[in-house]
Amino acid sequence: MITVDQRQFGRAVKFASSVVGKRSTIPVLTTVKASANGALHLDGTDLDTYARASLPYDGDEAEFLIQSPSQVAAAVKKAGAETVSFDRRDKELRVEAGELVADLSHTMHADDFPTMELIAEETFGALVDASLFRLLERVRPAISTEETRYYLNGIYVHAIGDGAYRFVATDGHRLFVADAALPGASGEIAEGVIIPRRAIEKVIGQFAKAESARFVLGRTVKSNQPDKTLAPSAHPSRAGFTAEIDGVRFELATKLIDGTFPDYTRVVPAEHKFAMRMARADLLKAIKTITPLSSDKTRALRLTALRDGLTLELQSPDFGKSRFPVAAEHDAPADFYIGLNAAYLLDAANAFTGETIEFGLDDPGAPVTITDPDDGGFKVVQMPIRV
Amino acid sequence: MITVDQRQFGRAVKFASSVVGKRSTIPVLTTVKASANGALHLDGTDLDTYARASLPYDGDEAEFLIQSPSQVAAAVKKAGAETVSFDRRDKELRVEAGELVADLSHTMHADDFPTMELIAEETFGALVDASLFRLLERVRPAISTEETRYYLNGIYVHAIGDGAYRFVATDGHRLFVADAALPGASGEIAEGVIIPRRAIEKVIGQFAKAESARFVLGRTVKSNQPDKTLAPSAHPSRAGFTAEIDGVRFELATKLIDGTFPDYTRVVPAEHKFAMRMARADLLKAIKTITPLSSDKTRALRLTALRDGLTLELQSPDFGKSRFPVAAEHDAPADFYIGLNAAYLLDAANAFTGETIEFGLDDPGAPVTITDPDDGGFKVVQMPIRV
Repeated sequence: MITVDQRQFGRAVKFASSVVGKRSTIPVLTTVKASANGALHLDGTDLDTYARASLPYDGDEAEFLIQSPSQVAAAVKKAGAETVSFDRRDKELRVEAGELVADLSHTMHADDFPTMELIAEETFGALVDASLFRLLERVRPAISTEETRYYLNGIYVHAIGDGAYRFVATDGHRLFVADAALPGASGEIAEGVIIPRRAIEKVIGQFAKAESARFVLGRTVKSNQPDKTLAPSAHPSRAGFTAEIDGVRFELATKLIDGTFPDYTRVVPAEHKFAMRMARADLLKAIKTITPLSSDKTRALRLTALRDGLTLELQSPDFGKSRFPVAAEHDAPADFYIGLNAAYLLDAANAFTGETIEFGLDDPGAPVTITDPDDGGFKVVQMPIRV
Repeated sequence: MITVDQRQFGRAVKFASSVVGKRSTIPVLTTVKASANGALHLDGTDLDTYARASLPYDGDEAEFLIQSPSQVAAAVKKAGAETVSFDRRDKELRVEAGELVADLSHTMHADDFPTMELIAEETFGALVDASLFRLLERVRPAISTEETRYYLNGIYVHAIGDGAYRFVATDGHRLFVADAALPGASGEIAEGVIIPRRAIEKVIGQFAKAESARFVLGRTVKSNQPDKTLAPSAHPSRAGFTAEIDGVRFELATKLIDGTFPDYTRVVPAEHKFAMRMARADLLKAIKTITPLSSDKTRALRLTALRDGLTLELQSPDFGKSRFPVAAEHDAPADFYIGLNAAYLLDAANAFTGETIEFGLDDPGAPVTITDPDDGGFKVVQMPIRV
């Protein structure tokens, strides 16, 4: 029998089960595997992402599966006790938490649970803080969900020199680019890697609360050719994130997307003819005020330069026409206009954090660059649409 | 052109559009009709429920439709201005709110909007306070959603003498009964009426915040035979609720369900062999702790009498077996047990408001009566299930 703190268990099982599907053609993948050996490891996986939470326990060595882990966590939380204990008994798992006694089915075999493909050998490692996870969250909206171009279904990370790294996502309609310095990183990112969206989302949810965490790239097995100059281990196959939060160690490892990220630099305009500068809050207010007045599919905002600012207009066959002004400084010619997808523009404006936002523009058919004059570390390129 | 307070307009249009469907085979039913004439009336209906909100306005008499009322309300709210104005112009409706200017399509004809079937002649009327709406909310969970027995799709209201009225709902598995005194009511409820669920839900949402409201029964047209002893108007065809909240008058009228509510008194046991009394919080904790440990369809709780209390047990083919004790006083024989649907028992325990709850029991096949020893005004009868 093993006993653990109920709150730690709740956080640990929530993390481990966050990568687990409720249904799977492989039933054991709906479970969380518990291994008590020095620490209690709770493991969950969908064979692409591996999540392990490790916490202290009292008791003997043990190994068992928690079938329906989310429901077990919900029940022991409601039971309201300080601790929860587990006792594996042949075809049953006895769970006790305060006055709750549950003899849960244990019909699957722990041996059938897949090996956790965690990172055994690092090719790159950096100590990071919450700012990296905020950065991932800023870039995330541009990740493509289109499966045919699978190499766009993640965030592309590559080194740009001087200990700085670039994080890029695009769905072909917009491109979000963020730069971060990772001081004291060990190893290097020789070629860029693509971290899949699912892992990014789990990581943002879990690690944003950590005071510090590690971001690593590496391989699941140790290289046994340590002295070869061009070791096959140089190119990582996994990305990982680890952090300890309130006594529980969280570790997430994900397969990298095996594909080539397109040369995004080709779509980033080097310079623009005109610039428009406005308060980000004004732009957000204008977008949010007029976008309700359209049906979903036709949300093309027309942005027109006026002498003393600009106006956002939205025309919808069902709703009619609405407009809202935005105070702006610009050097575009009178009556210059461009069409932009309202939802994408909203994502872009929300991804910035500063007070001011600047649009770089050329002509109505050319991509728009959106930047913050006070923060060179984040940039959006958005393709225009016809209006 | 007419101008109204933006906040009052927002609350009014939200109420009027709350009974309006987003899609309808009759397009004009997706709109809210505005009639400015003394007050600005905003009307919405699905031909069963009629909602009118009336608010003060400045300007001329006017009549127009607000197509997509929820979106218009969202846009003018985001515009953040104190007032909003409407100007009907041929095929367009100009809406201005602060810096927002919208020329909305006005392609439908206000004349096509159905006549609002509000109550013109009351057969019964009572001034009520928030306690009536809390009472409707307590009874609501037992309303049937099964369409074949349409006469169960509402709350049955009838007089029980001495100025008291009874509110009953049942879905055949459980019966919720609440009594309320409506002092100073005028007229009478000669036969019981059935108020449909949809209207009950709208009413609870809207009127629970009112300090006082009126509950009326009546007809949509005035009787022109006032001196006939048995006026055909004696039986109401509509129920209505009205209240004024912060300068806006809200009026909801609904068709009554045209059917015969079953004689529910036949299933209410007159007395029971045994009683079990427990803290409501303990029962709720026990139910909420063990119900996660089951798949949805097999949530049969087994309630067993122990010497010093009782235990709730749940057995599920997928999950196994769990149990949680509840401290209780009872006079049932040792090992007495009964099966109860967990979701229904949770609804019942939640519908009470006191500290203590009492079960009246006979044998495992007989209905259970659930009461609060300190509140005779509310009662649940729940059918057992086999365990």
